[in-house]
Amino acid sequence: MRLQHATWQEVEAYLAHSRGIIVPIGSTEQHGPNGLVGTDALCPESIAWALGEQHGVLVGPTQAIGMAQHHLAFPGTISLRPSTLVAVLRDTIESLARHGFTHVFFINGHGGNIATVKAAFAEVYSERSLRGSHSAESPLALGLFNWFMGRRGRELAAKLYADDEGYHATASEVSLAWYAAGTEKPVAMSPRVAPNGSAECDAETFRQRFPDGRMGSDPSLSSARHGERFLALGVEDAWEAYQAFLGDTPAG
Amino acid sequence: MRLQHATWQEVEAYLAHSRGIIVPIGSTEQHGPNGLVGTDALCPESIAWALGEQHGVLVGPTQAIGMAQHHLAFPGTISLRPSTLVAVLRDTIESLARHGFTHVFFINGHGGNIATVKAAFAEVYSERSLRGSHSAESPLALGLFNWFMGRRGRELAAKLYADDEGYHATASEVSLAWYAAGTEKPVAMSPRVAPNGSAECDAETFRQRFPDGRMGSDPSLSSARHGERFLALGVEDAWEAYQAFLGDTPAG
Amino acid sequence: MRLQHATWQEVEAYLAHSRGIIVPIGSTEQHGPNGLVGTDALCPESIAWALGEQHGVLVGPTQAIGMAQHHLAFPGTISLRPSTLVAVLRDTIESLARHGFTHVFFINGHGGNIATVKAAFAEVYSERSLRGSHSAESPLALGLFNWFMGRRGRELAAKLYADDEGYHATASEVSLAWYAAGTEKPVAMSPRVAPNGSAECDAETFRQRFPDGRMGSDPSLSSARHGERFLALGVEDAWEAYQAFLGDTPAG
Amino acid sequence: MRLQHATWQEVEAYLAHSRGIIVPIGSTEQHGPNGLVGTDALCPESIAWALGEQHGVLVGPTQAIGMAQHHLAFPGTISLRPSTLVAVLRDTIESLARHGFTHVFFINGHGGNIATVKAAFAEVYSERSLRGSHSAESPLALGLFNWFMGRRGRELAAKLYADDEGYHATASEVSLAWYAAGTEKPVAMSPRVAPNGSAECDAETFRQRFPDGRMGSDPSLSSARHGERFLALGVEDAWEAYQAFLGDTPAG
Amino acid sequence: MRLQHATWQEVEAYLAHSRGIIVPIGSTEQHGPNGLVGTDALCPESIAWALGEQHGVLVGPTQAIGMAQHHLAFPGTISLRPSTLVAVLRDTIESLARHGFTHVFFINGHGGNIATVKAAFAEVYSERSLRGSHSAESPLALGLFNWFMGRRGRELAAKLYADDEGYHATASEVSLAWYAAGTEKPVAMSPRVAPNGSAECDAETFRQRFPDGRMGSDPSLSSARHGERFLALGVEDAWEAYQAFLGDTPAG
Amino acid sequence: MRLQHATWQEVEAYLAHSRGIIVPIGSTEQHGPNGLVGTDALCPESIAWALGEQHGVLVGPTQAIGMAQHHLAFPGTISLRPSTLVAVLRDTIESLARHGFTHVFFINGHGGNIATVKAAFAEVYSERSLRGSHSAESPLALGLFNWFMGRRGRELAAKLYADDEGYHATASEVSLAWYAAGTEKPVAMSPRVAPNGSAECDAETFRQRFPDGRMGSDPSLSSARHGERFLALGVEDAWEAYQAFLGDTPAG
Repeated sequence: MRLQHATWQEVEAYLAHSRGIIVPIGSTEQHGPNGLVGTDALCPESIAWALGEQHGVLVGPTQAIGMAQHHLAFPGTISLRPSTLVAVLRDTIESLARHGFTHVFFINGHGGNIATVKAAFAEVYSERSLRGSHSAESPLALGLFNWFMGRRGRELAAKLYADDEGYHATASEVSLAWYAAGTEKPVAMSPRVAPNGSAECDAETFRQRFPDGRMGSDPSLSSARHGERFLALGVEDAWEAYQAFLGDTPAG
Repeated sequence: MRLQHATWQEVEAYLAHSRGIIVPIGSTEQHGPNGLVGTDALCPESIAWALGEQHGVLVGPTQAIGMAQHHLAFPGTISLRPSTLVAVLRDTIESLARHGFTHVFFINGHGGNIATVKAAFAEVYSERSLRGSHSAESPLALGLFNWFMGRRGRELAAKLYADDEGYHATASEVSLAWYAAGTEKPVAMSPRVAPNGSAECDAETFRQRFPDGRMGSDPSLSSARHGERFLALGVEDAWEAYQAFLGDTPAG
Repeated sequence: MRLQHATWQEVEAYLAHSRGIIVPIGSTEQHGPNGLVGTDALCPESIAWALGEQHGVLVGPTQAIGMAQHHLAFPGTISLRPSTLVAVLRDTIESLARHGFTHVFFINGHGGNIATVKAAFAEVYSERSLRGSHSAESPLALGLFNWFMGRRGRELAAKLYADDEGYHATASEVSLAWYAAGTEKPVAMSPRVAPNGSAECDAETFRQRFPDGRMGSDPSLSSARHGERFLALGVEDAWEAYQAFLGDTPAG
Repeated sequence: MRLQHATWQEVEAYLAHSRGIIVPIGSTEQHGPNGLVGTDALCPESIAWALGEQHGVLVGPTQAIGMAQHHLAFPGTISLRPSTLVAVLRDTIESLARHGFTHVFFINGHGGNIATVKAAFAEVYSERSLRGSHSAESPLALGLFNWFMGRRGRELAAKLYADDEGYHATASEVSLAWYAAGTEKPVAMSPRVAPNGSAECDAETFRQRFPDGRMGSDPSLSSARHGERFLALGVEDAWEAYQAFLGDTPAG
Repeated sequence: MRLQHATWQEVEAYLAHSRGIIVPIGSTEQHGPNGLVGTDALCPESIAWALGEQHGVLVGPTQAIGMAQHHLAFPGTISLRPSTLVAVLRDTIESLARHGFTHVFFINGHGGNIATVKAAFAEVYSERSLRGSHSAESPLALGLFNWFMGRRGRELAAKLYADDEGYHATASEVSLAWYAAGTEKPVAMSPRVAPNGSAECDAETFRQRFPDGRMGSDPSLSSARHGERFLALGVEDAWEAYQAFLGDTPAG
Repeated sequence: MRLQHATWQEVEAYLAHSRGIIVPIGSTEQHGPNGLVGTDALCPESIAWALGEQHGVLVGPTQAIGMAQHHLAFPGTISLRPSTLVAVLRDTIESLARHGFTHVFFINGHGGNIATVKAAFAEVYSERSLRGSHSAESPLALGLFNWFMGRRGRELAAKLYADDEGYHATASEVSLAWYAAGTEKPVAMSPRVAPNGSAECDAETFRQRFPDGRMGSDPSLSSARHGERFLALGVEDAWEAYQAFLGDTPAG
């Protein structure tokens, strides 16, 4: 069930039997010559929506903009400062906790978000931990699942693309986003496989290192048909992780 | 053209002939017994997407969560503090300005966002205005269009619902969101028309005043078929406003 | 009763019979060739002081600096960033709520403050709304009255100045500020009526659009004698609004 | 010349011959049984206004609310958090520097403001100092003068009240504020001289230590006639300090 | 060379031949029954100091407090909120960059810091990336090395403790901190090996899961003599990483 | 007892008989041609450690970086913005209060920290004072002792150096830091005694005024042997102040 398509009374009914919710989080950033700017949001969103439908889990609105400062030298990239993204996630989590959700599970599509999402979790926990046992608050567990690290998806990528999968604008994520968006954008790559290196730098440095935006990948191997398979496996990976997460019992 | 579905090179090509972009902004909040939680995001998003397609305007990712603190006593509502939303909009605008966009036009679906969006514009302008003429920055114009105030849409609502249109969970927005989401949720209303009053209060007070979440409306009059008509008129209203906005020339 | 002139024991006695307080808020910004930089603070302050005396309402210290970034290209303008003004209003309101005030009523003299003041109210309410029903806090109602939108004052301005009243450095506010400050500064206007346009822009753009600072007005029509009449009507308008506001009952 | 009563063109003319401005800063806080809540703002404001008139110095709007957290257990006190006051002073100073003011001189009426004002100065300087010599900014000197520490005023207080002057709600400041407000509020004190102790504590502790709000003072000795003398000496003290401050030459 | 023990002229001389500096960062948090509260700071600090001496690298002051919210239910733990630690690292890095340092290398002793340190790096880069190519700033590379993940140290821990090394209050870090502090605190462990689980939770939950503070470790195996060996290997690991980092060339 | 060298169980035992803790705070900034960059941290740290050992007081980790913006034109200086240092101290104090510490005593080595530390105390108190008597929090007293203002130390400095002690890079602090660091750095001074003036300015202005970083001092008179004597007297001064501070009883 998508929160955006539910009424508040349907949410109330959902809360009577489950305290868990899934929130997709991505990024709006360049993904090389043939990848969509929205790739990192489209991938976790499509997985979350399919999972929500198959398993009756509530899915919140996608956080489509993430921490993408290193991609800002490419047109179309939008980035939140880490401090801004921490505030967004804090308010989102506090709103959900206010309604009685105890397990908030983020499905993430962007490696560059991981540190900031974890810092945001720690910011939320800090308020509770500093207050100590005087706190009257209900328990809260926060989970982060990076779909691109799921076992099943990794195995398929290895089988389809071997070393040409790469690290940014990967063949797998370009495929899944194409499938989710119902499009394909065939572009010839030059060089076929992009250079590798560290993405932990500012935007000018990043563009110097990775002139067309790709990192170590050959996404000319991508196809929407592949994307369909990544979606199915992504749902299995995420569902497994979500079920384990629900078993995580915070102090109350 | 949706930014999420474009490559960075397509954005680069777009910038060669236009410096304007449209960003939908909404809210994730209760909309009464039959309205969708995502109503305020779905409405401007569907208008922006249709406008973008018809007129070749680039449309950024939807800011689905807005300032909805007064709705927090109803399950499903997610709200950003005004200070958080200001930071989000500042980072979004600064990212776009970095690429050379000079006209950023927000299509808004939520009355409760207006004050904070305007404060965010002033926050962005403040940095430039405090620096004075030493600033090397390019000109920047920020626009806000509230679709629910568009002339054509207002006229249709008056014709279809007269005084039962109301102020929150209105018959028109419920219709448009149903059409956008491809759903209808018929629910009997009691009382048929909801009470009126001020929404400028905290969440507990709001719920006391408006027990089922509606303000002055009878959205049992809504239908997806109506929504289709509101979409068409919303695009006309927004396109007219966007064209006027592009004529707004900031100092450079 | 002016808070600045009261002892704390007088405030304590006041609180025994009333939980309402009035706070004037203005701006320190250019007001054209003959208008005072303090116009937007002097107007609501003089109204609040007169109202306080006539009706025994406590009046807090004037917030003389507001959000005036668009006027910063004219010497003498002082502006708070929206985020700063939100913090000031939050601390002011929290201090008053701490003493048991439940109704804080701002009389405002500056259109450019409206969005930020409303965002500040929402910021204060957000804290309460996010805490939910666990909150032990007392009820709180926040009101904003823009004196320049009062019915009686509008009618007098229409009668005296018709279309030459304008939108900034208006004939009416220049008159009232002159009366409040006990001064008149006759200056010939050229052009007689200033150009119109949007003030939602940065400071350089504003000065380009409005070279002498006025927007659509001819304040050479102003006089302190007019100001005296605007003061009397402003008090009537504000008193009516304040009484209605006291009837606004938040949840407790 | 009071900025509030000037036009922007008068400010422009002033800047042609002087780059200095005076800003009064006070507090809104209890001042014992017979002292005005606005004492700490009224004192520096009346000194600044008189100085401005006598010596042709521009005087900005009074910052009437300061850092008064320790007085919050007494009704009527309004306090800004230090972080808020730092932001207010930063924006005020940056606005003035934007117009070309190089010397901003605060006349302060509240001991509890000193640390925060100095922290605010350091916050403003930090931005410049971190940017280093690449900075294109004009020089900036920030001054703080505490009127209650002026030599001439101290001597008169010692002569009139000896040890009964005290540390808060002092006989001298109550006198000056009475004179400035045109009022006298005779109240019998019990004990005649208030207890002494540290004010660096929270509000509950402060009220426990100083039950009627006074610290070490007997303000029943105060009179408006005394206040008139403190005003004259305060102007002399402040003028001497301001002239010395203008000789302070920052790097440009 | 330790910065704390250098004069500014010695730093100036150092900058003439090297633009790199090492900053130890740790945490002040419980480390089980026999581990020191300062373990996470003592470990990277002792490695940095020894490396600095052996290889002539400048070592800045240790950031002894980190992000340790999950340990706050144990007395002695001090934690910075992530947002605070981000600000500290931003100011530290900006200060160093001001002097011409282009490579700032953090040696970290606490897993819980990693996300926040990376978010802080991104916060610093964001300012530069948002400004774009107009920026006049010098290049900047930021590095993070977690001593406890160094290859040589890992191998020794595996050899000495096998699976009893654990994840918090590990046998290796307790040994190194003992050696650095010149102390040993033999305490019997019960159970001998602590339970395992996730540390991503609030403080109350953490203490419930890990009653004596250890995670999966048996630090009764620790000894200062082991610590001496971990120090030597830690220096080798860090030196290798630092040299690689200096080869990282940001855009200038 | 140093917190860094204690286990959490030792801290727990300490809390059973004392609720006070000492935290050294300094700065990382130039101290003239022969003074150590870490002088302001080394001095209070060595005093705190010796005091802690002699009197069994718990000593927290040293805050080695302070507010030193005015020294940033000299290589090696690291400065926190006042707003950052306020956040650091707030989190440190809240962490300690969480464990039941009621008296937190900072021994400070840097005059430039005083305003910001006091602002930080006020920031912490503000949260409590704004909440009012509804607050369930335990009492909290915050103390600041500037070792360089201790009576015994002042007397020795006057005897050894008379007027050549100076105001920054003083002969006494250089001596104590040399003793603490086990080093001496003899450098000839020219001029022998540095110029005097105000340090309340930005970094460029400071360096113009004080070309080698000293203010009014002749630290060529310094010696580690002197430092040993300043340490002993500093411990006596601080111990006296700490005992008085423990007698300070906040409301509970």
